[in-house]
Amino acid sequence: MITTVLLGAGNVATHLYKAFEASSQVTVIQVYNRSEKALESFPSSIEKTTSLTHIKEADLYIIALVDDAISSFSESLPFSNKLVVHTSGSVAMEAISDKNRKGIFYPLQTFSKNSDVDFSEIPICIEAEKIEDMVLLTKLGRTISTKVQEISSKERAQLHLSAVFVNNFSNFMYQIGSDLLSKKSLSFDLLKPLIKETANKIETLTPSEAQTGPAKRNDVKTIENHLHLLKDSPYKGLYEELTKAIRDKHTN
Amino acid sequence: MITTVLLGAGNVATHLYKAFEASSQVTVIQVYNRSEKALESFPSSIEKTTSLTHIKEADLYIIALVDDAISSFSESLPFSNKLVVHTSGSVAMEAISDKNRKGIFYPLQTFSKNSDVDFSEIPICIEAEKIEDMVLLTKLGRTISTKVQEISSKERAQLHLSAVFVNNFSNFMYQIGSDLLSKKSLSFDLLKPLIKETANKIETLTPSEAQTGPAKRNDVKTIENHLHLLKDSPYKGLYEELTKAIRDKHTN
Repeated sequence: MITTVLLGAGNVATHLYKAFEASSQVTVIQVYNRSEKALESFPSSIEKTTSLTHIKEADLYIIALVDDAISSFSESLPFSNKLVVHTSGSVAMEAISDKNRKGIFYPLQTFSKNSDVDFSEIPICIEAEKIEDMVLLTKLGRTISTKVQEISSKERAQLHLSAVFVNNFSNFMYQIGSDLLSKKSLSFDLLKPLIKETANKIETLTPSEAQTGPAKRNDVKTIENHLHLLKDSPYKGLYEELTKAIRDKHTN
Repeated sequence: MITTVLLGAGNVATHLYKAFEASSQVTVIQVYNRSEKALESFPSSIEKTTSLTHIKEADLYIIALVDDAISSFSESLPFSNKLVVHTSGSVAMEAISDKNRKGIFYPLQTFSKNSDVDFSEIPICIEAEKIEDMVLLTKLGRTISTKVQEISSKERAQLHLSAVFVNNFSNFMYQIGSDLLSKKSLSFDLLKPLIKETANKIETLTPSEAQTGPAKRNDVKTIENHLHLLKDSPYKGLYEELTKAIRDKHTN
């Protein structure tokens, strides 16, 4: 049985807690958070603390805090030579204080408060300095996912950048679609089956094979019609840039 | 029983054919295409022709051709006063020749050769000049989908523009993610669960609620790290534009 303490009480901590609790091979023995408020969403059966000095002994400590807090928080931990990992996509392993053994436990997914997550298919990207810590993190990852992979901090930075494109920027494409439809009092629901199918296609086709539309086939007339519709829109520039990028990609 | 003739043999015609054949209230009595080759993918049980003069009598004729061909093709049809509709998102109803009754039957979805489509949730956007034609198109739409909606040519143009953002441009975000990962020899499979969840979130959250990431929270340090990683990439400009657009949207 792996014992762990969660340091933080936000979305990642909450979803990890639920996933670990569903496994029989790992137990969260305590959740720490600076403020009491955020701890309220955790069940009363789990031990909670707001005091660093009351943190219990465990096999590993998982920092699930905002990126900027990771380094100084890890410095403030009142113990040493323990395995301390963080869950961030964009912070290097070296950001963790030298007084403990460092590691990464990065679930590559987007987490929202009110949306349940099935961890079994989520890539868990792990990294550690010591071989025995890698073994423990692999074991821990496998309790919740079938996809545990060793990823260096450099690779993880590139992965996180890619995630910004496919997640944050794709979601913003949905935002633009929604904004454009609301201008004509049309429901965003009309686009939902298309959004779903766009994502589904990627299971069987490469993005290059799945690419369609006026930019790909250099359909100048349709592009001009779209730019005319966008003439007073803040999104006209983006349409032009994206159309150009797709054209460049598919004529090379 | 509604009888229809399909004019064209591409992706839209193929998927519409399959959907109609699964319904007991509509029958495709013939498929026309200029070249014999594309007709081969249709089963031998269906009557096929490459000759305009051999097109049979039906309740309606569905032009499923590339946008540019619709107008002149509709002009070349050797009959008049029949209901002739097209399936394009971006071509106005007026593009159809005046000698026949005009209409639109636009399924708002992306169609690929090797990817089966469940029409039941796909919005079917219909338009016609005459009330009796609207009734027929509504009836036809309902044989394959629960979501049949009257949409004017102007609304359809905006819908198609929105579809370019959520489909073509989102897919290009996947392309960028794939390109960035291949630079570090990382598998695109790592991003697939994230892509799926990004699209799934839209079922329960608005795009604005679902938006996360460094641009939304104005995380300057992470943005700078990403721009550094992109310094020799053709996608640096897009990252900057999209980050700015998200920031503008979420600070207003």
